[in-house]
Amino acid sequence: MDDSNNKISKCRIVVDAMGGDYAPQNIVTGAIEAYNQSKDFQLYLVGKKEEILSVIKTNQLSFNESYIIDTPEVIDMEDSPTSALKSKPDSSIVKGSQLVKEGKAEAFVSAGNTGAVMSAATLIMGRIKGVGRPTIGAEMPNVNGICYLYDVGAGKDAKPSHLFEYAVMGTIYAREMGGISNPTVGILSMGEEESKGNEVSTIAFKLLKESKLNFIGNVEGRDILTKDVDVVVCDGFVGNIILKFGESVPRLLKHLLTQTANKSFIDKLKVGFAKGTLKKALKSLDYQEHGGVPLLGVNGICIIGHGSSTPKAIKNMVLKAYEMYKTDLVKKIENSFKEYSK
Amino acid sequence: MDDSNNKISKCRIVVDAMGGDYAPQNIVTGAIEAYNQSKDFQLYLVGKKEEILSVIKTNQLSFNESYIIDTPEVIDMEDSPTSALKSKPDSSIVKGSQLVKEGKAEAFVSAGNTGAVMSAATLIMGRIKGVGRPTIGAEMPNVNGICYLYDVGAGKDAKPSHLFEYAVMGTIYAREMGGISNPTVGILSMGEEESKGNEVSTIAFKLLKESKLNFIGNVEGRDILTKDVDVVVCDGFVGNIILKFGESVPRLLKHLLTQTANKSFIDKLKVGFAKGTLKKALKSLDYQEHGGVPLLGVNGICIIGHGSSTPKAIKNMVLKAYEMYKTDLVKKIENSFKEYSK
Repeated sequence: MDDSNNKISKCRIVVDAMGGDYAPQNIVTGAIEAYNQSKDFQLYLVGKKEEILSVIKTNQLSFNESYIIDTPEVIDMEDSPTSALKSKPDSSIVKGSQLVKEGKAEAFVSAGNTGAVMSAATLIMGRIKGVGRPTIGAEMPNVNGICYLYDVGAGKDAKPSHLFEYAVMGTIYAREMGGISNPTVGILSMGEEESKGNEVSTIAFKLLKESKLNFIGNVEGRDILTKDVDVVVCDGFVGNIILKFGESVPRLLKHLLTQTANKSFIDKLKVGFAKGTLKKALKSLDYQEHGGVPLLGVNGICIIGHGSSTPKAIKNMVLKAYEMYKTDLVKKIENSFKEYSK
Repeated sequence: MDDSNNKISKCRIVVDAMGGDYAPQNIVTGAIEAYNQSKDFQLYLVGKKEEILSVIKTNQLSFNESYIIDTPEVIDMEDSPTSALKSKPDSSIVKGSQLVKEGKAEAFVSAGNTGAVMSAATLIMGRIKGVGRPTIGAEMPNVNGICYLYDVGAGKDAKPSHLFEYAVMGTIYAREMGGISNPTVGILSMGEEESKGNEVSTIAFKLLKESKLNFIGNVEGRDILTKDVDVVVCDGFVGNIILKFGESVPRLLKHLLTQTANKSFIDKLKVGFAKGTLKKALKSLDYQEHGGVPLLGVNGICIIGHGSSTPKAIKNMVLKAYEMYKTDLVKKIENSFKEYSK
């Protein structure tokens, strides 16, 4: 890479051109759109060079070829995350993580095999000191704004200490990226009382209670969407299920509205009206709007996107990576473990 | 009770008149409405007799006083479930469970303190042979009909064997009460592959795979609402969170629609249309329609309702208890453990 040995003032964002169901088409077009919108950062595209160039040509885009990093191998959706890192060292996912590790880039963005990206980022970039397990969060729509939910996929069978770490990282993210000055934190549980919870959540309750976090106690399933709480922490198994459940709500609504429409002509008219309005209202439930989700707790910026990411989602992911760079989020998370521990 | 020593041909349903935020008003009116609709069963009201009579009088209802069982004590929502059973033996919840245990009634229906009702039913009625842990299920709306989700509250930190039991009981319930001849069963997890899951779910996967259940493997959060699966099993901690998250969706939708309406006059008109239609479409998400949920795995019929149950919800709970009696559900669950085990 051109400027790897110089003093860097510009953020370098590496985008995995081969990651996702519609790669490289959606990735290349979305990433270049983000780059054209804000040339304050330097975009790198990593992947099969010929394919990337072909997309650039087909879509009549303009992009400096020297910022394309050629990697012949591709980790696909079916590959086993950890073994793929070893068997495909010349893949875009491994290369992207290495560039961050080597200080040749500040951020890596991928809509590829989620497990592989998480493993690559965690193993290659390494974990921030104090972090036992990195985490992926989700921005859930809430009647009071946004509720940041951690963890939604990085870790099953989490220990109480992991929930504590999620709470610290989530607090920093909500503060720096969400602009919330002193984010409230809740533990997802079956009831509000301290005694309500499973083994892990009740121990985590004690850890959070003793910390300097703005801990408000247990919150319930309904509170994610409706309570004035900024950060909610849970085991990744639970969070992943909640996130996917939530994502499926619009499809159920569409189905229920269609059923209602079939009852009478007037209902059909009303549903016609309702669908468009609903679509507009549900915009905040659409992950394409948010782009991908950051993997917090690794030594670098890493944004992971949905396999079916549209160019718009990719664009938003790249811009989010740049936001994270500007707020110096990784450094702030590193410092936060001293700040928030007891 | 009048006919306790005679041979019984009629189902006797005991309703906890003191249970719920609007007791005894909502309970008494709802239960008597169910009774008036189908006099094929005998209704008993258990609670403070004077208060019950007062509701009957105020609402100009007609009900034979000899079917009111006077209990001076009330377990309220703040009481600790297990200690309340000991400290308030003359409460409607304890009495109702005892009547079933003693063969003086077939069903107990309560919208009172959920933990206390579960404890009373489990400890007093006792568990069906083969059941390590009783379960509460929820009927989730699904694009293909209904998805029965177990467990949604009875047990946190479930063992793999508990998930297996939920699968067996859920299968019987979906077959007998849902009219599904050979219900499909899935384990709620983070991915479809057998290897995807937490420690408990992956062991449960093996148990279900080896059983005679119609097991289709792991299902994800989105599948509850959108996949063609009849019964989904999970730890009660997860199920409870999902259920409450789902119940809160209409409130978020209302909020999002109102936000959209504030954008322009045309949007306001459209949202006006949308709200009514949406309300109609969301009817299946409304727990009042389903009434309460049965506690499966105890030696008797036990239906537990939401604290804020309306008279309609109570009516539906009573009618559901009678349905369960007619299908001989308790006996069928007892037999099922032989049938479905390997």
